[in-house]
Amino acid sequence: MTSRQRFLDAISGVELDRPPVWLMRQAGRYLPEYREVRGGTPFMEFCRDVDRAVEVSLQPWRRFGTDAVIFFSDILVPLEAMGLHVSIGDGGPSIGNPVRTGADVARLHGFDPERETGFVPEILRRLCREVDGKAALLGFAGAPWTTASYAIEGASGRSFQVAKTLALREPALVHDLLARIADATALYLRAQIDAGVDAVQLFDTWAGELSPSDYAAFAAPYQARVFSQLPAAIPRILFVNGAAPHLEAMAASGAGVLSLDWRVDLAEARRRVPGMVLQGNVDPCTLLGPLPAITGAVARCLAATGGVRHIVNLGHGVLKETPPDAVAAFVAAAKGGAA
Amino acid sequence: MTSRQRFLDAISGVELDRPPVWLMRQAGRYLPEYREVRGGTPFMEFCRDVDRAVEVSLQPWRRFGTDAVIFFSDILVPLEAMGLHVSIGDGGPSIGNPVRTGADVARLHGFDPERETGFVPEILRRLCREVDGKAALLGFAGAPWTTASYAIEGASGRSFQVAKTLALREPALVHDLLARIADATALYLRAQIDAGVDAVQLFDTWAGELSPSDYAAFAAPYQARVFSQLPAAIPRILFVNGAAPHLEAMAASGAGVLSLDWRVDLAEARRRVPGMVLQGNVDPCTLLGPLPAITGAVARCLAATGGVRHIVNLGHGVLKETPPDAVAAFVAAAKGGAA
Repeated sequence: MTSRQRFLDAISGVELDRPPVWLMRQAGRYLPEYREVRGGTPFMEFCRDVDRAVEVSLQPWRRFGTDAVIFFSDILVPLEAMGLHVSIGDGGPSIGNPVRTGADVARLHGFDPERETGFVPEILRRLCREVDGKAALLGFAGAPWTTASYAIEGASGRSFQVAKTLALREPALVHDLLARIADATALYLRAQIDAGVDAVQLFDTWAGELSPSDYAAFAAPYQARVFSQLPAAIPRILFVNGAAPHLEAMAASGAGVLSLDWRVDLAEARRRVPGMVLQGNVDPCTLLGPLPAITGAVARCLAATGGVRHIVNLGHGVLKETPPDAVAAFVAAAKGGAA
Repeated sequence: MTSRQRFLDAISGVELDRPPVWLMRQAGRYLPEYREVRGGTPFMEFCRDVDRAVEVSLQPWRRFGTDAVIFFSDILVPLEAMGLHVSIGDGGPSIGNPVRTGADVARLHGFDPERETGFVPEILRRLCREVDGKAALLGFAGAPWTTASYAIEGASGRSFQVAKTLALREPALVHDLLARIADATALYLRAQIDAGVDAVQLFDTWAGELSPSDYAAFAAPYQARVFSQLPAAIPRILFVNGAAPHLEAMAASGAGVLSLDWRVDLAEARRRVPGMVLQGNVDPCTLLGPLPAITGAVARCLAATGGVRHIVNLGHGVLKETPPDAVAAFVAAAKGGAA
């Protein structure tokens, strides 16, 4: 059985000898072969370099035998295509012309993903040929609230107070922004689907910072607006960091798979949203610990779900300090063997 | 009825015409009268200045008529008394000699709160006379996990990976550190109780970053260890930022009041832990918005609890950008009147 089939079977609820496994941000700085390919290239420029983006996307698959390959990119690529000046440094993303007024929103433009972000479908078509059905190929995008909060904040903050304050003071403006981002994101994901991905993941990383009523107003409707514009057959994964209060809302988004952070117990998640496939949810910090801690954490996840309708993953992206051997141990534990 | 009686009645479950209200970090930089008194004094030095700490503790009570007065201080005062070099700047706390090894833990010493942090009981005795039973006087301390994570990290991080990694690699060392901090914290709170506080709040601000199994191992037992060493009659409030996954565990800590962040709905919290008094939980960012948004957020909280066994508060501390008028509107909304 190929990894691709295993991944799709897990989503369909087929019983498997073991669940599939991959890791969010599995391609990245923690891998020496990534650092070698990347060199000193600025991040957004690197995302546009098809050859090298394909190469680093494949590195973790080759090294660890993950069941899925996600293309190397950043969730802010669509914002750049909409007219914002995005740069990503060690301190996180920063945007030179953040969105604060109605004029700023009006200046944002939709984009043709094949033309203005043509490197993305091109990377995916190349990956599709390289992976050749052996592993699941994943597309992704940022969800509207998360993308909009970057657009508004203009820099990484801890409390998202600029974005939240704008939502309080000018809700119509923020809803307009979210709608534009949602529609652009749907087109962007459709281009990825046309290029051959097997499933798409929507990252609503910062929606977990919202109160339940703000989540219902500013996050949930726009997740649904993206998903509703995708072909019915494509599997959809929704990630929220800080998902515990929002499981029921996430289950109503149109996603079939909920990707959960480590703060919520998977057994509780299964009880609360029994119809959902669950992805996750080991604390990325666990991979900085000794190997038995990694094996133990994977075993706890598997015990919580019985390995059924479960895609083993971290609860957030791989940390840059992670030893590659820890990732190998994580994948091996999920596969039920030794590293 | 005095504010003090109202506060204690809310905790006892007595039916009231309106619930009591106060705000975490109600004394602080957002108030011009605080900035005037503080001047350029370094933070930890300011905490030790009895006259000025008393004055800034009283400022929000005088200005807004909150039902509780919490003494002005910092949760890292006990760590300093245990031998760490603490300084607090705009970027958060930093510790010159963080705890990383068994020798570092062994070097920490218990302390006599009346002698080594005598300014704290002195501030409280003075506040007790000033407040004179008109408002509830609150003591507080950091909970062991939160305090230990500062001690280990040595600086503010976002992911607490140094503390979590040490907990994975050297659990015995971290348990030893947590036990020492818990016992010192219990003595520190007993000195506050002897000085006349009406209730104590334990801030486990960062426990919400732990997985449920790590919370059970590293946070919960040490919250209980602190509470179990306090006189039975003193009301105990437990705050966790990111409380949603942990409500049931929090209810088993020995606290009678759970102070909740804004990410969880109070009606859901009431269903899950029906025996608990709830404190909170408006998003502090709401106070950066227009006045109707503030009134609406308070009304939603009150609707969720019916105002019964509820202490109105924010879900975390007042942000330094908050306009004082917004705090006035918040207090007025909780009291059921106009600002």
